[in-house]
Amino acid sequence: MKIALAQLNYHIANFEANTNKIIANIEKAKTAGADLVVFSELSICGYPPQDLLEQEDFISETEKYIKIIAGACTGIAAIIGAPVINKSRQGKKLYNAAVFINDGKKHIQRKTHLPTYDVFDEYRYFEHNTEFNIFEFKGNKIAITICEDLWDKQPLGNSFAKDKLYTVSPMEAYSKQNPDFIINIAASPFSYNQDSNRRNILVDNAKDYSIPIIYVNQVGAQTELVFDGGSMVLDRQGKVVKSLKFFEEDFQIIDVDKIDKLPEIGQPAYERIARINDALVLGLRDYFAKMNFKTATLGLSGGIDSAVTLAIAAEALGTENLHVLLLPSKYSSDHSINDAVDLAKNLGVKYEIINIEKIVSAFDNSLSTLFKGLAPGIAEENIQARARGVILMALSNKFGNILLNTSNKSEAAVGYSTLYGDMNGGLSVLGDVYKTDVFKLARYINRNQEIIPENTITKPPSAELRPDQKDSDSLPDYDTLDTILFNYIELKKSAIEIASLGFEMELVNKTISMVNRNEYKRFQSPPILRISSKAFGFGRRMPLVAKY
Amino acid sequence: MKIALAQLNYHIANFEANTNKIIANIEKAKTAGADLVVFSELSICGYPPQDLLEQEDFISETEKYIKIIAGACTGIAAIIGAPVINKSRQGKKLYNAAVFINDGKKHIQRKTHLPTYDVFDEYRYFEHNTEFNIFEFKGNKIAITICEDLWDKQPLGNSFAKDKLYTVSPMEAYSKQNPDFIINIAASPFSYNQDSNRRNILVDNAKDYSIPIIYVNQVGAQTELVFDGGSMVLDRQGKVVKSLKFFEEDFQIIDVDKIDKLPEIGQPAYERIARINDALVLGLRDYFAKMNFKTATLGLSGGIDSAVTLAIAAEALGTENLHVLLLPSKYSSDHSINDAVDLAKNLGVKYEIINIEKIVSAFDNSLSTLFKGLAPGIAEENIQARARGVILMALSNKFGNILLNTSNKSEAAVGYSTLYGDMNGGLSVLGDVYKTDVFKLARYINRNQEIIPENTITKPPSAELRPDQKDSDSLPDYDTLDTILFNYIELKKSAIEIASLGFEMELVNKTISMVNRNEYKRFQSPPILRISSKAFGFGRRMPLVAKY
Repeated sequence: MKIALAQLNYHIANFEANTNKIIANIEKAKTAGADLVVFSELSICGYPPQDLLEQEDFISETEKYIKIIAGACTGIAAIIGAPVINKSRQGKKLYNAAVFINDGKKHIQRKTHLPTYDVFDEYRYFEHNTEFNIFEFKGNKIAITICEDLWDKQPLGNSFAKDKLYTVSPMEAYSKQNPDFIINIAASPFSYNQDSNRRNILVDNAKDYSIPIIYVNQVGAQTELVFDGGSMVLDRQGKVVKSLKFFEEDFQIIDVDKIDKLPEIGQPAYERIARINDALVLGLRDYFAKMNFKTATLGLSGGIDSAVTLAIAAEALGTENLHVLLLPSKYSSDHSINDAVDLAKNLGVKYEIINIEKIVSAFDNSLSTLFKGLAPGIAEENIQARARGVILMALSNKFGNILLNTSNKSEAAVGYSTLYGDMNGGLSVLGDVYKTDVFKLARYINRNQEIIPENTITKPPSAELRPDQKDSDSLPDYDTLDTILFNYIELKKSAIEIASLGFEMELVNKTISMVNRNEYKRFQSPPILRISSKAFGFGRRMPLVAKY
Repeated sequence: MKIALAQLNYHIANFEANTNKIIANIEKAKTAGADLVVFSELSICGYPPQDLLEQEDFISETEKYIKIIAGACTGIAAIIGAPVINKSRQGKKLYNAAVFINDGKKHIQRKTHLPTYDVFDEYRYFEHNTEFNIFEFKGNKIAITICEDLWDKQPLGNSFAKDKLYTVSPMEAYSKQNPDFIINIAASPFSYNQDSNRRNILVDNAKDYSIPIIYVNQVGAQTELVFDGGSMVLDRQGKVVKSLKFFEEDFQIIDVDKIDKLPEIGQPAYERIARINDALVLGLRDYFAKMNFKTATLGLSGGIDSAVTLAIAAEALGTENLHVLLLPSKYSSDHSINDAVDLAKNLGVKYEIINIEKIVSAFDNSLSTLFKGLAPGIAEENIQARARGVILMALSNKFGNILLNTSNKSEAAVGYSTLYGDMNGGLSVLGDVYKTDVFKLARYINRNQEIIPENTITKPPSAELRPDQKDSDSLPDYDTLDTILFNYIELKKSAIEIASLGFEMELVNKTISMVNRNEYKRFQSPPILRISSKAFGFGRRMPLVAKY
């Protein structure tokens, strides 16, 4: 029996477009002689639909389009992901389900493990499955699982570790029924420090239960979340015998009768920084495509963050869709302007220079009575950043260019940024990328030729909001800062544990305190493209009013 | 046996302050001759602690302070709410628990129903309880439940309604063991359109199982959530025989042997608008107190939103802690400035007038080349709102006054506001109050004397960003708008259902489309004090990239 793996990019709530894409791939699979084509989790509506699931008309649309897809399943079977109504009078209203459709017949398998941690909220919407039934199709006994169903052995995080996050095991239940293989439909987002986990989970499940696994993941970005695809087929020894592309739609066919005879091919080698780069490019491109945006702007400072953001935007959107502003003040150095101009020219991006000195003076004059006798400080520094924000938003309002936020994760963590100033933007491209990785991205971007001027990469980072300001005046060196931050944010270690890695206790406490004190700022941050296992935003929910 | 109900205001993660408060109330209960004192859900750490629960050191602090409290329980027993570690090797790491402490002995009861909807995320952190054990104390058989444990019969929302949200019932399990009464420790937030539900749930449970209920709720605000207290004791007929204050700490004692002999007293009558007013005052006061803020500012426009916000701030923080700015442009009418000045004078609030014309001109001049030949429009209107935002933030940065956001829910819904302009602020006071209710709040504030100038209440609402602008140029009248919005947002009705209430289909579609298209703006909104069953923000999670 031949099975097609359809790894596709869906648009949330765009039933018509998703259905058209699904039907086109059903036809493609038919033409290729496949018996069954498999789509990813909640493919009919895109993952994650969030609170749209609470709207009754959203569910009735789902049902309508399932019928349309069923009509296309003649001479071929399909498995699609969809929310289905819980017909019991008790429990949550919906199940997260896989719907197997074959010549008018349906087999529905519900999801058992509902991830409710980090960016996942599935128990908000869905009831847990408790029934495990395999089914027969063309002489094959098939068990369907959905994403997290394979993850019961995965302990979460490193603190109070458990052997299992869940108290039941779908794989155990299924293995007793001796299926010929397991299908897993997934919507598993990318994170650079966890993607090997995902493969290991699949390998372990195949080996432990001695069952081949056909894994179909979603690809494409949905606001913050970047789904990287990487669908694959594993034989019963856990060897990857078929693998689909990362960060792109893909379609491949496997003959299930031959799985155990195929050679191991593994997944393509892919350097960490290249993966991060490609995730950001896809994240930015899909945000624009799915929001129906075309053109972008940003403020080019001559520094590394705006340079890397622009290079990524150029790859994602095309240089012809970018129009950037250089907004120097009296504290901007000549080299900053030169570096910014060089970058815009290297990329061939349209730019304008607007000096903000007169605007800043107008603000200072208006406030002179109120601020009389007080030394200039943060208030005056922020006026510059906010004046830039106003100009960039005026350009955005006038021409429809979406403002890209250029803050990095290190800055966002310690609040080294101005709310309503450089924190502005429709999307934060680097908000989950630590500064040390921003430097690595710059080198990666320059791998074939100098795009980002060398001076931008090598000069000491500065916000240039007062004379001779350097980031290092207020912050520890970025290697140190980022290591402390990663241990606190991603690994959730305590101050004492972090200090035991070889840092001064005072520095650790000061850093953690900066992170905590700036929850209020991040609360108003744009959505941040998530590339790590713990990004700021939706997946990290810290109280504002707390004793930190 | 005498039981003390301690309805207290906790500070999240402030273990020392919370413990001191708990111990002081244990002593108070002892002095009053109580045998047992009951505190609310997660009282040791405050509710909701959110992702702090994922930090191992947060849990070890909890354990340390439980021991300190246990040390104070001599000659008296106490029930406190705390997260406790799940010692099994499977499942979530924690339970949400009630800890009964008596002379060194403990009885731990875990929470069964973990609300995971709207603002609640409990399955993110906690494993469900499956064991129901009553215990004896001083000859009484006691069953402890935690908040949602009583809510299994409550269907959520009006669509695909179920008889029960949960598939088990703690009350059924307990009632078989014939307890003398039920204790329920809760952290149930206020919403003006659901608070009668809460009482009905308690009444129904008492009646259905013929068991008295002692209900202790948290009071006080935690960022967006306002917990209103209103703890009570119900007899086995469901009559309220003891009731504690709303929106204030309270402490009362009940003799459980006499519950069924006490007369019905009900809960204090409390008009809807008065409840909303008091919720907002408490919400604002607690945000400042718990963030260690003292003084506030806002931009006073002469319109009703900033007027009502200021009056609420005056009640919450004291007029001496307010310093407001009038920021007229060339489009500001004389009456606006006069109305604003009258209000500041009526309240005795310090104010300054800063004209923004020169600042706006400086922006316009800087942009004149870029915008050459283009008619003025939204871009220019927004510059005014953003220039005001910059000045208000400069005042905030200079003097430490926290900027209060003055947007209302109707505006926030349809995006009738400027991102990084009038959307600025540390806290949105009226962001969950529809415009029609803002008018009612103004009347309520003026109930004894004119505080808000009559003209502010009666004149047609205007943003004053262009000559003779009126809200009614872009929006339907607020009675119509608010009814459509309430049906869409709070009641989750479809466009067709809303139109069937008597509105033009086109208007309904246009309104819903405005709500959906502005998700991106609200994403960057300040935290909003929640007073309804569905506020924008944390409890309403809509995708940005969706086909709307």
